Amino acid sequence: MRLRLLLAYDGSRYSGWQIQEAAKAPLTIQGEGEKALGRLCACPVRLFGSGRTDAGVHAHGQVAHVDVPDSRAGLPWRHALNCLLPPDIRVLSAEEAHPRFHARLDALHKTYVYDLWQDRAFVPPRLAPYVWACGPVSLPPMREALRMLLGEHDFASLQNAGTPLEGTVRRILEGDLTECPAEEFLPPHLPRIRLRITANGFLKQMVRNIAGLLVACGTGKLMPDAIPAILTACDRQALPSPTAPPQGLALAHVTYPDPAA
Amino acid sequence: MRLRLLLAYDGSRYSGWQIQEAAKAPLTIQGEGEKALGRLCACPVRLFGSGRTDAGVHAHGQVAHVDVPDSRAGLPWRHALNCLLPPDIRVLSAEEAHPRFHARLDALHKTYVYDLWQDRAFVPPRLAPYVWACGPVSLPPMREALRMLLGEHDFASLQNAGTPLEGTVRRILEGDLTECPAEEFLPPHLPRIRLRITANGFLKQMVRNIAGLLVACGTGKLMPDAIPAILTACDRQALPSPTAPPQGLALAHVTYPDPAA
Repeated sequence: MRLRLLLAYDGSRYSGWQIQEAAKAPLTIQGEGEKALGRLCACPVRLFGSGRTDAGVHAHGQVAHVDVPDSRAGLPWRHALNCLLPPDIRVLSAEEAHPRFHARLDALHKTYVYDLWQDRAFVPPRLAPYVWACGPVSLPPMREALRMLLGEHDFASLQNAGTPLEGTVRRILEGDLTECPAEEFLPPHLPRIRLRITANGFLKQMVRNIAGLLVACGTGKLMPDAIPAILTACDRQALPSPTAPPQGLALAHVTYPDPAA
Repeated sequence: MRLRLLLAYDGSRYSGWQIQEAAKAPLTIQGEGEKALGRLCACPVRLFGSGRTDAGVHAHGQVAHVDVPDSRAGLPWRHALNCLLPPDIRVLSAEEAHPRFHARLDALHKTYVYDLWQDRAFVPPRLAPYVWACGPVSLPPMREALRMLLGEHDFASLQNAGTPLEGTVRRILEGDLTECPAEEFLPPHLPRIRLRITANGFLKQMVRNIAGLLVACGTGKLMPDAIPAILTACDRQALPSPTAPPQGLALAHVTYPDPAA
């Protein structure tokens, strides 16, 4: 039988989602998941995620599927997995899925959030693992830049080298930048800023490159009207801004077709 | 010259505030603070906190004082210390204080918060280091119990063995229990509950014993009307509930007399 899992994790301690074959295998989300599932199934299993998350990247709602022996039907998967997994990986739900459900191939679109902190000199201890302390930024040019990325484009300039993909055209369905409420217990401070972006797919480190691009616009290092030429170049070398660091990023949600539709 | 520091820290990695003399000295907040200050002063210094926090207990607003050489006047203390300290200890402010300001002796009252999570089986990864997953609780009996603790009492029954103190009478000035807003990215869930308590002083692990007592009332294991007898006994043995774990607790605020008054 096939299970569909909804996972939340803090990526700080992990070398990303994907298992890495190495003499001394680094800690990965997939690896920890397969270890726990393997103990419950008493056999090796393979856990398929909706996509990889980089080292240090978090998830509020990663989706994965796994085939488990029919003899294990009726196991309280969510509870059993949460007992075996480390506390920084949690199963929000675990339910039987259609035998052909595929976490990666069936995904319609994904939503990521990226959090920016505007004070380089002071990041509250509880926020430090979850934000990029990029310094003060101005929202209007960032919003103008984000608008220019919406819709279907060839995002090759916003892709880092690595995994070869069949194509580099993606459609950004939604994107917004919002100021978060003031942090508790802190004296008056510049608000945390959240980038939220939904697309039918993302290239390697594309959200982090978008975050880097938007911050360059928000600090006046780049004009939003430079963006069309950056996209047209279809070359990462045409992007003058750095890739934003991983810890500000979290996979928030993966959307699938409504099975009832 | 004397400095007054306002500190926030995540206590997860630390054996509490207080330096411990041992062959292999454990990591402490005071120890890390003195190390950073000592480097800036080029001499050993002693950092005095408003009080000790236990191993694993956090702070949003711990206050401390330290004497530094007059030759170091004008140093950008906040920035310099934040460069030297680990990211889980942050200086919110550092300013010159009256030469007789004393972080512990001058404190008028302190406010602690203790956070409860009502789902034992699922704690979101980002909350796990900051809550006690005590299971579902009922607020009305907890609020009734808390009301019975307000005011001046001998709290000897709510004190754990350890540091001898001159007296065990303390005055709880304020206490409340509130439901926090729903957590982002989670399906509908029982709310996080925050205990906030202000007193003119706290005995050893008193807030954690109060949290344990309130949760016992909230789960029906103890009736609030048992509290007067528990207090009158002046004996920890009379308290049937366990001491709540440290990670739910944070020192929120220390109040001092207004220097202008």
